[in-house]
Amino acid sequence: MKPELFRLSRAPYPYFRTVPARFGDMDEEGHLNNVALAGFYEEARVSFLRHYLKSKDGQEFRFVIANMNITYLAEAHYPGDYDVGVGVSRIGNSSFNLGAGLFLGETCLGVMDTVQVVIANDKPSSIPQHLRDALARHTLVK
Amino acid sequence: MKPELFRLSRAPYPYFRTVPARFGDMDEEGHLNNVALAGFYEEARVSFLRHYLKSKDGQEFRFVIANMNITYLAEAHYPGDYDVGVGVSRIGNSSFNLGAGLFLGETCLGVMDTVQVVIANDKPSSIPQHLRDALARHTLVK
Amino acid sequence: MKPELFRLSRAPYPYFRTVPARFGDMDEEGHLNNVALAGFYEEARVSFLRHYLKSKDGQEFRFVIANMNITYLAEAHYPGDYDVGVGVSRIGNSSFNLGAGLFLGETCLGVMDTVQVVIANDKPSSIPQHLRDALARHTLVK
Amino acid sequence: MKPELFRLSRAPYPYFRTVPARFGDMDEEGHLNNVALAGFYEEARVSFLRHYLKSKDGQEFRFVIANMNITYLAEAHYPGDYDVGVGVSRIGNSSFNLGAGLFLGETCLGVMDTVQVVIANDKPSSIPQHLRDALARHTLVK
Repeated sequence: MKPELFRLSRAPYPYFRTVPARFGDMDEEGHLNNVALAGFYEEARVSFLRHYLKSKDGQEFRFVIANMNITYLAEAHYPGDYDVGVGVSRIGNSSFNLGAGLFLGETCLGVMDTVQVVIANDKPSSIPQHLRDALARHTLVK
Repeated sequence: MKPELFRLSRAPYPYFRTVPARFGDMDEEGHLNNVALAGFYEEARVSFLRHYLKSKDGQEFRFVIANMNITYLAEAHYPGDYDVGVGVSRIGNSSFNLGAGLFLGETCLGVMDTVQVVIANDKPSSIPQHLRDALARHTLVK
Repeated sequence: MKPELFRLSRAPYPYFRTVPARFGDMDEEGHLNNVALAGFYEEARVSFLRHYLKSKDGQEFRFVIANMNITYLAEAHYPGDYDVGVGVSRIGNSSFNLGAGLFLGETCLGVMDTVQVVIANDKPSSIPQHLRDALARHTLVK
Repeated sequence: MKPELFRLSRAPYPYFRTVPARFGDMDEEGHLNNVALAGFYEEARVSFLRHYLKSKDGQEFRFVIANMNITYLAEAHYPGDYDVGVGVSRIGNSSFNLGAGLFLGETCLGVMDTVQVVIANDKPSSIPQHLRDALARHTLVK
């Protein structure tokens, strides 16, 4: 259940997206809300996918999330600029996993993992070779 | 990784909270957004905890989420009134788990599990007996 | 600047949409956040438009908001089921106004007005007669 | 109803806050949602107030929004880094106005105005001299 240790440093993540906290991300206790933080991971994940995987011949695919797992390690506050690292942690036949980490400076405040299913014509589809190659170039580095 | 079968029907959940979808919950594809759905589970979870566990002598405690896991089984749409079932799935020493299911009528669209840590004086605390009793009365029923 | 008095009672609004507050709507002070409340009005406004104006031959139009004005009269709290009343307050050539009121029971906590522009082929368009008729049937009643 | 012309350039705003759009800010049409954009203005407004007005002897005050008015001039898209300019447009006895503009580069996509009421001991209060001075130093420049 505990995240693997290597996930708690910035080193393994090949891509980072900075997400400045917004006032509206806070909950009544003055922390960044758990669901709002899920939005930070989403923003980094989408940004990663747009950055690396979208290409003219990739438009026929979309990615659906089958599972999202977030471990909250420490509370996050407003204001603050959070860096979310993202990388590929598994490549299967019709799905792949992304791993992410939320950082304030060098401190890891949480990690997230998603299972992404590749959809074409409204059903799960084998990952085409060019996407597979792109994913393989941006894996988490142990 | 797949949710246990019994979690996909309404029967095991002792508590339900109806969350009507809002226009703002949709993403660019016209589905209810994954993060927005995390907010549906949050609303049901908070409502459950307020309903059953808050009492005058419980004010010294708060609950922090250590882990949140969501499995998305089918896409959800707007408009719609979603029923989120919640129950206790584990009672530990200083933490407990909640399990939830998202339903449209009898159809389960997803399940969520959280690990909740009981905090007193800013650190994890043994669950006091009266909270332990309240949790035990509202477990998921296999 | 002050809202007209008749807007502070439920009577003039021909349509109501109930929006239950969610935990995530609260800000750090424990009130429903101003932006979250803008979402309550949005939900009621969209619901009104879907309910009355959408028809097979209306699909070629969409409505864009040119202006949104919200007056906050009192703080709103969680939990609570808020009723948002909506009605048409002006019908122009290519735009119309909607007026809304946010109620907890009989108490008005705020009012909102929007200017909606009718768009066809990506530019403002005269309101077609059947939409004009539908709008005229659901005006605010002084 | 139309915004004053000088508000459509960056020049008059003494303070800017950059708000990167998030995936979750989009609505089903792929534009940044109206309510999400209200959150952009909120973030800039709060940032402005924290930056200029908070001081040790200001803690006894809080600011409540009595009115928020947003004019939407053009659609905004994801991804994008939006600059929100903010300045003081009126200083009254117990309230003041803030004016804001939303920019993508030099293009103004909208303007917002709020009426902020100064609250002390749960009721409107004269603006104390040190806050009045701070506000006067950061006005919109025609």
